[in-house]
Amino acid sequence: MRIFDNPLNTEWKDLQERVNTNDVAIEDTVAHILKSIKEGGEQALREQIEKIEGFCPEVLQVSEEELANAVLDVSAKLQRAINAAARNIREFHQAQKPGAVEVETMAGVSCRRRYLPIDRVGLYIPGGSAPLFSTLLMLAIPATIAGCKDIILCTPCDENGRVNSAVLYAATVCGVSKIFKIGGAQAIAAMAYGTDSVPKVLKIFGPGNRYVTKAKQMVSSQSVAIDMPAGPSEVLVMADENANAAFVAADLLSQTEHGPDSQAILLCNDEILANEVLMEVETQLDALPRKDIAKRALEHSRIIIFEEVQTMIDFANEYAPEHLIINMIDPWEVANQITAAGSIFIGEFSPESAGDYASGTNHTLPTMGLASAYSGLGLESFMHTITYQELSKKGLLSLSNVIVSMAEAEGLKAHSNAVKIRLYNHK
Amino acid sequence: MRIFDNPLNTEWKDLQERVNTNDVAIEDTVAHILKSIKEGGEQALREQIEKIEGFCPEVLQVSEEELANAVLDVSAKLQRAINAAARNIREFHQAQKPGAVEVETMAGVSCRRRYLPIDRVGLYIPGGSAPLFSTLLMLAIPATIAGCKDIILCTPCDENGRVNSAVLYAATVCGVSKIFKIGGAQAIAAMAYGTDSVPKVLKIFGPGNRYVTKAKQMVSSQSVAIDMPAGPSEVLVMADENANAAFVAADLLSQTEHGPDSQAILLCNDEILANEVLMEVETQLDALPRKDIAKRALEHSRIIIFEEVQTMIDFANEYAPEHLIINMIDPWEVANQITAAGSIFIGEFSPESAGDYASGTNHTLPTMGLASAYSGLGLESFMHTITYQELSKKGLLSLSNVIVSMAEAEGLKAHSNAVKIRLYNHK
Repeated sequence: MRIFDNPLNTEWKDLQERVNTNDVAIEDTVAHILKSIKEGGEQALREQIEKIEGFCPEVLQVSEEELANAVLDVSAKLQRAINAAARNIREFHQAQKPGAVEVETMAGVSCRRRYLPIDRVGLYIPGGSAPLFSTLLMLAIPATIAGCKDIILCTPCDENGRVNSAVLYAATVCGVSKIFKIGGAQAIAAMAYGTDSVPKVLKIFGPGNRYVTKAKQMVSSQSVAIDMPAGPSEVLVMADENANAAFVAADLLSQTEHGPDSQAILLCNDEILANEVLMEVETQLDALPRKDIAKRALEHSRIIIFEEVQTMIDFANEYAPEHLIINMIDPWEVANQITAAGSIFIGEFSPESAGDYASGTNHTLPTMGLASAYSGLGLESFMHTITYQELSKKGLLSLSNVIVSMAEAEGLKAHSNAVKIRLYNHK
Repeated sequence: MRIFDNPLNTEWKDLQERVNTNDVAIEDTVAHILKSIKEGGEQALREQIEKIEGFCPEVLQVSEEELANAVLDVSAKLQRAINAAARNIREFHQAQKPGAVEVETMAGVSCRRRYLPIDRVGLYIPGGSAPLFSTLLMLAIPATIAGCKDIILCTPCDENGRVNSAVLYAATVCGVSKIFKIGGAQAIAAMAYGTDSVPKVLKIFGPGNRYVTKAKQMVSSQSVAIDMPAGPSEVLVMADENANAAFVAADLLSQTEHGPDSQAILLCNDEILANEVLMEVETQLDALPRKDIAKRALEHSRIIIFEEVQTMIDFANEYAPEHLIINMIDPWEVANQITAAGSIFIGEFSPESAGDYASGTNHTLPTMGLASAYSGLGLESFMHTITYQELSKKGLLSLSNVIVSMAEAEGLKAHSNAVKIRLYNHK
């Protein structure tokens, strides 16, 4: 982790560079998996699982018995934690319920917009060393509040055909019961196209390895919606001389343990703090079980010193971080000037881990600078809108000149006919 | 246009098939244009324009004088029409302003979400035979209401370097003044990457030809957001024995004049109406200036008879039409059971052209069945959300067991450290 002291504006672009993870190399492999399952259905799905995982469970769907047994495997302490986190997440997402809009724009011209749930959604939760049951809460809770009728979950199983118990427990807490033991690009294909066992969904959510990410990207240009383009996780910490260097270092490290592609950036206006943080990172790093991963992420992580707080703000807005921690004397003063970030953590007692797990906000957030235009997941991500309009004969009459003039100026005569025929030719 | 009488459920998929427009053939051409402008900036942009259009205007940006003069070219009648449509569109989109959410999920744990404008947006409006100034209203009005700081418009000019006057007038009405005379994939590249003259934008909106559509699709997998995947326009009309066949035929035809790939589907429960509509289509078609286009679109348009209204509803939801006209005796009874459509037109006096131009709803809507998961453009399309959380020391303390238990169960020790260090090690 290097310190950059007051870099020139011309150097910012390089300092804001993320690790490039556009995985062109696996495009053919993933395209082949998608195509074979799209065309071959259930049979092809089983063959692909067999080929990729080395075995395929007899029954892909998790049984009621397996679900019930999983609860027994999860400690009471972890159950309580998951329940508490679920309660907070539920409360914050319930508050996001969008209202309907109804406006009579002119007499006899009534326009409405309603939010409706997306009928069938698919959630993907990776397995392996870090079973992300927290992500399941972040996806399944808003899906149920939105009113999605069918919620499908795909997650890989181990070589004994078992799915991680904490993942199954979290699914139970959220009321998700259609769970399939499928991982990787195979899972995305199954949900995107549907097979005999896995229902076709309309939108796919959730993180995954490079194969999952690539598969989501590829199906999204076809007929399925996805939550958002995914990149490595990232944090930007803004700190001033009041910040505790140990807290800052812990925040940077909690980002870097996610994966070798993760990135942690510190912006500060104090050289002493910069050096203290650097030392703290070294000290704390040593005690981490995932220190090898963290070390690799630290190679493209940076400490940047700016004299002015305004410059820190400008840099942060250009970087558009997924997570932004503002550990400064007047954090809201800064936060109110931030226009591009996924989620902002205010003050010294708001570590990213609070939002990653339990405070109530969603942890599925835009990365790679997309936070300048994309939003993190919210209740609306599991809904879509329909607009409605109802014109009375009088309403259409009062708008008719407007529609006819515009349609004819655009050269669309049949558009104006549809108005004229109603007004001058009514049987 | 063929009539299908009570098709079996197994035949539905074929009847719901759209014209496939995934343009793999032009991928290389578009990729080359994008790459050269990304790398070569302004100089490459001018070269590409020169090469593709045969000439490149000396100054790409529309001048204040050109803007002022354009107004003189637009008839008072068309000006009034554009003003009236703009007023309705403004009113309906202003009513969509999303509120902030603020919840204290636990004592000392405050979670918020705010909507912010996307700072710089790019709008594309095609030129050519049908200058879509109506689309400019649909994009620029919500962009200004959202509070987007920079609104860039690209639209092609004619061989004399002139942009369509109605487009410029509509831009003036919306308060858009940064207008560039650039069309095609070149315009998308310029806005996606930025050049000396064209600012880089964060999200690109608007329809276009196959090159524009492909370019938007390709840049969207990089660093720029786009409004939505685009396909040919489509309408599904639901009608019963009370419907006037001439109205229904006019609605089907107004869809088919958009382009040869457009699709119009009629669902009805009455054989007599089906045959009347077929005859009316033939009669009305003959008088249309764009009848050659409409004829080609009619080749993949269909009339489908179902005995039961419920079957019509099921079919419509599976088709998920961009536009749905419900010309039936109790249209709201049906509309309330529709879960997938872009925009719904209620009753016999609500032709699609009303919404295309003037009633106030947005006409940029999801096609190709994506209406089951995507929304049409709304005010929020020009905004994004940021979530915020602020924990007091007491708030963090009361959540600490939850966070630590979950982080450690996921194998993320640095995440739990970021909590522990704040509570047990505070300087």
